[in-house]
Amino acid sequence: MPRPSQPILSTAIITTAALRAVDAAGDFTMPGIAEKLGVRPSSLYNHVSGRAEIIELMRGHVMAEVSVPGERDERWSETVTRLAREYRRSYAKHPRLIPLLTSQTVRTGVAFAMYNALAQAFSDGGFTPADVLAAITTLDSFVLGSALDLAAPEEVWAQVDEANDAMRAALATSVPNPARADTAFEFGLQTLVAGWLTQAQ
Amino acid sequence: MPRPSQPILSTAIITTAALRAVDAAGDFTMPGIAEKLGVRPSSLYNHVSGRAEIIELMRGHVMAEVSVPGERDERWSETVTRLAREYRRSYAKHPRLIPLLTSQTVRTGVAFAMYNALAQAFSDGGFTPADVLAAITTLDSFVLGSALDLAAPEEVWAQVDEANDAMRAALATSVPNPARADTAFEFGLQTLVAGWLTQAQ
Repeated sequence: MPRPSQPILSTAIITTAALRAVDAAGDFTMPGIAEKLGVRPSSLYNHVSGRAEIIELMRGHVMAEVSVPGERDERWSETVTRLAREYRRSYAKHPRLIPLLTSQTVRTGVAFAMYNALAQAFSDGGFTPADVLAAITTLDSFVLGSALDLAAPEEVWAQVDEANDAMRAALATSVPNPARADTAFEFGLQTLVAGWLTQAQ
Repeated sequence: MPRPSQPILSTAIITTAALRAVDAAGDFTMPGIAEKLGVRPSSLYNHVSGRAEIIELMRGHVMAEVSVPGERDERWSETVTRLAREYRRSYAKHPRLIPLLTSQTVRTGVAFAMYNALAQAFSDGGFTPADVLAAITTLDSFVLGSALDLAAPEEVWAQVDEANDAMRAALATSVPNPARADTAFEFGLQTLVAGWLTQAQ
């Protein structure tokens, strides 16, 4: 079989290559992706405008896994809880992508499906537009931090001499991951919902 | 002036070089640091055992900026709030370090000063050891996510056609950073404290 003289490129192929580089090394470069795909860097620019667009494509890739539509009779706090769980699950697959995504303005339409649903939920809960923004940002921060925690090692804190009695007792309750991270995430989500219920008007 | 034949190395110099590499490119390598410092990679190993130790040294560097001692008459929720603010401020200086730190077990004694104070505060608040661990993890996730948010661009979400009315109204209240991120962080901290107060026994 003769090899094709030109490898077939697409935005999906470029996105996958960039995601692999980020998973492995925390970042990607245009020349690095070109080399990996066996094309010249200039060929990439027939499909994407540059680094920023690739980051938005990666955001779209992970956001597409967050299923937004909910039950009709779902309460606003249930919507928020459900979206937070899916959002975390999707981002936990690519923890090293997180700082790249947070360092860039969200422009991907697909990402707005989730943010729109969150905005509607908090708005239904009685929050003012300013508090809707703050609540979404809080959830965003908590979920991204929790996604990093889900990707953390079995033992987050070593049993060190420096731990005091309270910390030692807390660490003694720890279980292997993902149960440890899952338990903490669900507890934190309950904390946030309980807090929002006291803040909502 | 003759140049010294051997550049002076120390763990502090190695830590600073690694931190610069992470800030710039999201990661560091032993050969990369050696090249930057004009030494052979083998020279680094006279000071550090390897990559993992350098990551712990970087953790110690950012954790040393978190001032732990508090007022004697401080309430547990005030201790937690105060530590969260300092913790976020310190980590926001090195957002790309965050995934490297969360991917490795905490062994640095200096990091335990803060975790001990948090464990004592939640324990004083009436939480069981298991819930102390979950509450610390929740705060950790929220603070690390918020540190990434503080390092985010002025405009986190573009004003796109895809935004619904609730999201559009929320975005219209946004102000430039750091005020935007600060407002959201303080709101989220209030949410968590309100939630913990309903959960504490």
